Amino acid sequence: MSFEQPVDSGKIARFVDIATFMRAPQIDDLARVDIGLFGIPFDLGLAYRPGARHAPAAVREASRVIRRVNPTTGINPFERCQVADVGDVNCHPYDYDAGIDAMTAFVRALRGHGVAPLACGGDHIITLPCLRGLYDGTPFALVQFDSHSDTLDTFYGRRVTHATTIRRAHEEGLIDASRCVQIGLRGSLWDGSDFDYARDAGMRVITYDEYDAMGRDAAIAEIRRVVGSHPCYVTYDIDGLDPVYAPGTAVLEPGGFSMRDSQVILRSMTGLDIVGGDVAEVSPPLDVGGITVTNAANLMFEILCLMAAPRSS
Amino acid sequence: MSFEQPVDSGKIARFVDIATFMRAPQIDDLARVDIGLFGIPFDLGLAYRPGARHAPAAVREASRVIRRVNPTTGINPFERCQVADVGDVNCHPYDYDAGIDAMTAFVRALRGHGVAPLACGGDHIITLPCLRGLYDGTPFALVQFDSHSDTLDTFYGRRVTHATTIRRAHEEGLIDASRCVQIGLRGSLWDGSDFDYARDAGMRVITYDEYDAMGRDAAIAEIRRVVGSHPCYVTYDIDGLDPVYAPGTAVLEPGGFSMRDSQVILRSMTGLDIVGGDVAEVSPPLDVGGITVTNAANLMFEILCLMAAPRSS
Amino acid sequence: MSFEQPVDSGKIARFVDIATFMRAPQIDDLARVDIGLFGIPFDLGLAYRPGARHAPAAVREASRVIRRVNPTTGINPFERCQVADVGDVNCHPYDYDAGIDAMTAFVRALRGHGVAPLACGGDHIITLPCLRGLYDGTPFALVQFDSHSDTLDTFYGRRVTHATTIRRAHEEGLIDASRCVQIGLRGSLWDGSDFDYARDAGMRVITYDEYDAMGRDAAIAEIRRVVGSHPCYVTYDIDGLDPVYAPGTAVLEPGGFSMRDSQVILRSMTGLDIVGGDVAEVSPPLDVGGITVTNAANLMFEILCLMAAPRSS
Amino acid sequence: MSFEQPVDSGKIARFVDIATFMRAPQIDDLARVDIGLFGIPFDLGLAYRPGARHAPAAVREASRVIRRVNPTTGINPFERCQVADVGDVNCHPYDYDAGIDAMTAFVRALRGHGVAPLACGGDHIITLPCLRGLYDGTPFALVQFDSHSDTLDTFYGRRVTHATTIRRAHEEGLIDASRCVQIGLRGSLWDGSDFDYARDAGMRVITYDEYDAMGRDAAIAEIRRVVGSHPCYVTYDIDGLDPVYAPGTAVLEPGGFSMRDSQVILRSMTGLDIVGGDVAEVSPPLDVGGITVTNAANLMFEILCLMAAPRSS
Amino acid sequence: MSFEQPVDSGKIARFVDIATFMRAPQIDDLARVDIGLFGIPFDLGLAYRPGARHAPAAVREASRVIRRVNPTTGINPFERCQVADVGDVNCHPYDYDAGIDAMTAFVRALRGHGVAPLACGGDHIITLPCLRGLYDGTPFALVQFDSHSDTLDTFYGRRVTHATTIRRAHEEGLIDASRCVQIGLRGSLWDGSDFDYARDAGMRVITYDEYDAMGRDAAIAEIRRVVGSHPCYVTYDIDGLDPVYAPGTAVLEPGGFSMRDSQVILRSMTGLDIVGGDVAEVSPPLDVGGITVTNAANLMFEILCLMAAPRSS
Amino acid sequence: MSFEQPVDSGKIARFVDIATFMRAPQIDDLARVDIGLFGIPFDLGLAYRPGARHAPAAVREASRVIRRVNPTTGINPFERCQVADVGDVNCHPYDYDAGIDAMTAFVRALRGHGVAPLACGGDHIITLPCLRGLYDGTPFALVQFDSHSDTLDTFYGRRVTHATTIRRAHEEGLIDASRCVQIGLRGSLWDGSDFDYARDAGMRVITYDEYDAMGRDAAIAEIRRVVGSHPCYVTYDIDGLDPVYAPGTAVLEPGGFSMRDSQVILRSMTGLDIVGGDVAEVSPPLDVGGITVTNAANLMFEILCLMAAPRSS
Repeated sequence: MSFEQPVDSGKIARFVDIATFMRAPQIDDLARVDIGLFGIPFDLGLAYRPGARHAPAAVREASRVIRRVNPTTGINPFERCQVADVGDVNCHPYDYDAGIDAMTAFVRALRGHGVAPLACGGDHIITLPCLRGLYDGTPFALVQFDSHSDTLDTFYGRRVTHATTIRRAHEEGLIDASRCVQIGLRGSLWDGSDFDYARDAGMRVITYDEYDAMGRDAAIAEIRRVVGSHPCYVTYDIDGLDPVYAPGTAVLEPGGFSMRDSQVILRSMTGLDIVGGDVAEVSPPLDVGGITVTNAANLMFEILCLMAAPRSS
Repeated sequence: MSFEQPVDSGKIARFVDIATFMRAPQIDDLARVDIGLFGIPFDLGLAYRPGARHAPAAVREASRVIRRVNPTTGINPFERCQVADVGDVNCHPYDYDAGIDAMTAFVRALRGHGVAPLACGGDHIITLPCLRGLYDGTPFALVQFDSHSDTLDTFYGRRVTHATTIRRAHEEGLIDASRCVQIGLRGSLWDGSDFDYARDAGMRVITYDEYDAMGRDAAIAEIRRVVGSHPCYVTYDIDGLDPVYAPGTAVLEPGGFSMRDSQVILRSMTGLDIVGGDVAEVSPPLDVGGITVTNAANLMFEILCLMAAPRSS
Repeated sequence: MSFEQPVDSGKIARFVDIATFMRAPQIDDLARVDIGLFGIPFDLGLAYRPGARHAPAAVREASRVIRRVNPTTGINPFERCQVADVGDVNCHPYDYDAGIDAMTAFVRALRGHGVAPLACGGDHIITLPCLRGLYDGTPFALVQFDSHSDTLDTFYGRRVTHATTIRRAHEEGLIDASRCVQIGLRGSLWDGSDFDYARDAGMRVITYDEYDAMGRDAAIAEIRRVVGSHPCYVTYDIDGLDPVYAPGTAVLEPGGFSMRDSQVILRSMTGLDIVGGDVAEVSPPLDVGGITVTNAANLMFEILCLMAAPRSS
Repeated sequence: MSFEQPVDSGKIARFVDIATFMRAPQIDDLARVDIGLFGIPFDLGLAYRPGARHAPAAVREASRVIRRVNPTTGINPFERCQVADVGDVNCHPYDYDAGIDAMTAFVRALRGHGVAPLACGGDHIITLPCLRGLYDGTPFALVQFDSHSDTLDTFYGRRVTHATTIRRAHEEGLIDASRCVQIGLRGSLWDGSDFDYARDAGMRVITYDEYDAMGRDAAIAEIRRVVGSHPCYVTYDIDGLDPVYAPGTAVLEPGGFSMRDSQVILRSMTGLDIVGGDVAEVSPPLDVGGITVTNAANLMFEILCLMAAPRSS
Repeated sequence: MSFEQPVDSGKIARFVDIATFMRAPQIDDLARVDIGLFGIPFDLGLAYRPGARHAPAAVREASRVIRRVNPTTGINPFERCQVADVGDVNCHPYDYDAGIDAMTAFVRALRGHGVAPLACGGDHIITLPCLRGLYDGTPFALVQFDSHSDTLDTFYGRRVTHATTIRRAHEEGLIDASRCVQIGLRGSLWDGSDFDYARDAGMRVITYDEYDAMGRDAAIAEIRRVVGSHPCYVTYDIDGLDPVYAPGTAVLEPGGFSMRDSQVILRSMTGLDIVGGDVAEVSPPLDVGGITVTNAANLMFEILCLMAAPRSS
Repeated sequence: MSFEQPVDSGKIARFVDIATFMRAPQIDDLARVDIGLFGIPFDLGLAYRPGARHAPAAVREASRVIRRVNPTTGINPFERCQVADVGDVNCHPYDYDAGIDAMTAFVRALRGHGVAPLACGGDHIITLPCLRGLYDGTPFALVQFDSHSDTLDTFYGRRVTHATTIRRAHEEGLIDASRCVQIGLRGSLWDGSDFDYARDAGMRVITYDEYDAMGRDAAIAEIRRVVGSHPCYVTYDIDGLDPVYAPGTAVLEPGGFSMRDSQVILRSMTGLDIVGGDVAEVSPPLDVGGITVTNAANLMFEILCLMAAPRSS
């Protein structure tokens, strides 16, 4: 079986034509699609610096550099299944709740056609509606790269925000805490109890301190142990990276992941049952030199390879 | 009588100390203040590029360059009355309506102490709550520098937005259309009827085309004629400027005012009864080289001089 | 008759979805298209600062701000005919001649389907292949906004370059010199004879000095006089603008057009028989704050309105 | 006992109100203050790229992101003592010596009220007057993060400069060389003897090479061993960081500390008797994306936690 | 007679080789030089934003775009006399007075060899030592483009600064006030008496207001009338330009000259006896997109053409 | 014997005078030169983002910060031999083949005078002509830092490009594959066979994965083992660095070398017989904050030290 391929950058130069995610084909007929790359241009929940609504456009541009084969795992996702750019969620410019609902509906529609979702956000609230739309009765495992736990109960009085998204997902039964890993947490804390909810719920919280102490290999083993063979969602909040790798985000938290470590960890997750994912909190107006959007495009590619890995090649 | 003066930039270098608007003193006791400079860090209504919430901080920094005396009119506002930085409206990071209400209450509190308001926005919705707060029973005259009429009925289904702010103000009786001038309107139009509401209501709409045809002097005369001796509010949407003078704004509309023309028009309004004003739509994350925030600071100074002019020196 | 419309920015926010030129529909079936907007990502002839190859992608993004109706002429091009984004010329990344040939073939194909071409370049050589492709036996009138005459015989030993493009077009009989206007020429000169070819050939050369002396109205009249009712091609080299309006270009020549003057002149050309056009020399990597690409998008819109004007509405 | 707290960023959004260091209260009455955060806007000694005079303003803005609790040590400095923003040293714009004297007097005044100083510089000369002002008869231990030793005898003929600051401090008896650590030294050398003074004086010089060889844990142990229980001053020259973490500084020296390593080392110094500190050489006009000023704000927070640690919580 | 020519940009591409001012030859033997282009990398007097010390390097780079012939006057300065890049004044990095002395000595040495000086500053104090060095017993006429009068008596207690430079020059008898024109003055004023010294001394002060009112032609006539046939020095403080044309300068004063107006005025001064000149206050670290340095290079070219005009071609 | 030294930055401030590479003297008489630093302003082969033609000018500027002595090895190259800036290859602005030939001729001329070449590119094709020019009958060893193997057979149909440069060099017998190391290879792959040519030819390919697994020390040992005592050329493609260290390059490949690792590896190569080298793919228009050009200047200094090491001091 053969799949419609991305534009061949060896034949049509990268600067030619309208950009799609990784130059993948735009396909409207979801029945033909296996993995759908899409944008969620939404940042209404950002309490400090907005701009993430512009991420899908900018990451599409930056993803012109992605080739086809993963250099470590050798996986070519485009040969294993039909990967397509399926557009953007039509986020309302200021109706917060309408935006959340549109996201859920969008992912639910993908699931209805058997399309696995890979989103480019958008502030980190996107993970909640993505999980809602993807949910089929079994709580998911979760691997969350982040500097924050996102498990506050409320944030400025609102219950559904980027700072509460994981707590809501847990309360709604969308994720199985015992199968969840939060990794990279750091940054000055609100009051010291910031990670209590996640820990009390039974999530495996690996702060950056712990990550640094245990080492990358041990962290990888821990992720694989916690997730096991469970269907798993991967979310990469770009502020999990050190700010030098992601200056274009709402809140800079020094002392985080390098791209190298991120790539190695993600590639080491090959074989897990990754059923969906997102890269969130990318804010192009705050970016410099395209670093953030290029790294976001590469992280999307890594997650794509994980999602494609279980499929026959 | 003597007033607390701004920091003297001839004695304390401009780069020293925390910035306030024009280095004016921060005064909490509103009873001592005649004109209050304040920020409205709000951009939740921006349907394209957000960022205006950061304007008050950035314009305060940029306003370190302002000296005391208007070079054309000779007015020194700081000698005529007590000018003070009275802080920011505490805008909620995502509760739109709460933000609007807070603005109204803030300006109403100023009015309660006889403080004339001069705001640094924030998206252009700020004019509506400022007028609400300032309203004392008599509709105001209005001079609006802008590329857009801001008189749509609804914008993305919402009635209170930067694109509808003037229409709402008119419907609420806050402004007297026969005393209103909109000047600088231009840019590609939605459907050609964009200015109909304003014209039908009786406002004097001077498109940039008409401005260009009639000349600056005639435009000034027209503004003075329409406003007359009526208490008047001045709002300068920074996108009234050509984008080269204001790259830091949500929507760039080429072909607009220069700073020179803006200065001349504003200075020529000296003697009108300017009771309040704002500079809106300044978006520092989109600015380059500080051009926009510097121009915004200078426009605030011009409006300040107008507000101070009628006061005894 | 009804035409497929651009995305309605009043319903789907500008930051949503993949950008096309002015959010016009992408249409592959050229038989359905009346005016084709397309990109020419080519800069191999730039002898100083490259980068114009990235213009089509960046101008598409910037053109999200364009609405539908011309504020001066009232023309809505999208109601008068089918406007579409017809993609990019597939420019080879380093085969200069192949690139030129591809441009010619692309425009010829458009003409074959009766599609009028409006290009986003690309260095200024693009005008030559566009004219070649559009040519049907009758030399065109030409209106060229530019700081340079582009009529050298050779440039670094090559005959087909952005600095010789108009001379070649004339020698090839693609343009009728007596119907040609070059306007805005300025900048330090190579040897003082820089404009001799154009003048000797019979073109109407309006240097910026002459433009300034005669005034905008007289210049408009002169353009209309020279072009008359002849089928005419419009090329706007973005360096015709003063560098403050177009910092993103290969060679900055201070002392040029404002956007306002450009808009007025272009709008005043309404009614001329404009059969094609281009905006050239836009270099996004050198741009600041999106000024250049936004202005380029607006200039394309102005030319589009000219091209649509003669069509029944 | 309760202390006046910083603005609560969970209630008042970070973009609201005038920025102070870490949103701490501005307190004029020094008698109420335990630790004073202040700016030294001075760069008259920079022999290459100036701009550090703008650091206090920019770091205040960037410090809006700081929360209250150290994620590793759990220390909340704001609960342990009264932390306040005590303003800027009034540095003369071009009288070098007056600036130095003003710094000394400023810190001496702080000491007179028992306020521990934490400065945001300003070129690295600031350490000398801070030590002078803080000096009470006992030479201090010193931990200096830096790429340069700053122990030249003269620099361009002047004895009191950022390049000689540590030598002067030693000669003046302000520091006890046997209790001093210089760490991170690197960069091409003037003549190979660059570190001789420090070594000969008995300081513990840990070049970046040695740091890399011995490892972070050993370096920490060495710092703790050298400093012991001695009252210690901490100075972090931002060029101690690799330039990717601090592009905004006068001289870029590739191959330096990451923020992560800096955080770990500083946090591991908890329990040492840190009596004062500074972060120096931050140059906002040279910064990109706020990386440098954000990192500077975070380093100030780390030093603040060290200073607060010994105080009862 | 033939002169050593600049690099021919039609043969050696502009991006090749080390940049000199306008690609003119570097000539050490001053006896061979008629007009010397040189840099004054000095900004120690800037009381707000430093950076002008980097101007000579950046303007050399930007001047790669200059060709040889003035498009309005037809003058080719390189054919009329030997133009050369004669290097930089060796400004001490922080000894203010040594810097001033070095400038004077540098220009005096040029004069000693009959070399006419054209400087690229550097803060505006440079005009004073240039005049001192050039002085031969007869006070010069002066044409000063500026937003400030630079005639304060002292500035932060110092008598020799960019804000007092013209007053000192007048007091020292270097300029003949009756032959001096200050044009473009504007910006908020210190106390309203800012221009009194210049007017009282007999200089012709043309504020921007007056310039705007009288028109460009009248201003030109006035300049020619005042200067007459007197040996004249031209100084262009880049902040005379509106900030959109010169964002890279210490203090932005909106509402100033365009490059077009500057070019026309300067070109209209052809035939005056221009014996030296400078372009000052260019600050590359604050520039965006090379606008300021490109404009500075072009202004230097205009002054060069004026200086070369009287020489036989 | 004594050599002409670079400008002494301790006496003449770094911002003074025209920049040469590392402030080394410009020497035209090649007979006097031992190591020639030169620029190759060429980017005609870049298939994505151009701009590398501007590298020599920008790296010269950035190299003002380089002092004289290597901090790890203690080598002062300027004392061991005559180091000079010998200018730029005169690259034609669009004749690709002429550019390649000019490079070869330039290096051949250097070799003719016994000058060892150290180039600042320019796209990576530069290595091929440098090797051709340097070739004296014995194939060189090669150490290549890079994210790509550059061993494609053709790239967009052309055989001599930056993506094929090493393959051509091998086919032409300029390098001895058994003495070649490629290190740092990574990034998504075209088809998985990207490194086959290099491996099949017998080169030692150390992907970044392998580098990470084996550790820096082992990699150093491997490089020394492979190169042995063979005359060796070093090429550092700046995209070998992680993009945070080199945002200014055509194609960003996250997950690469730090500057620290690069410095350590290069310094550990001291004693190898390094006969020439280059730093390639530096693109200043894409740089931010001077990071890339500063790092490029430092890498050139490291290679210079290697080249000077074998010479008697």
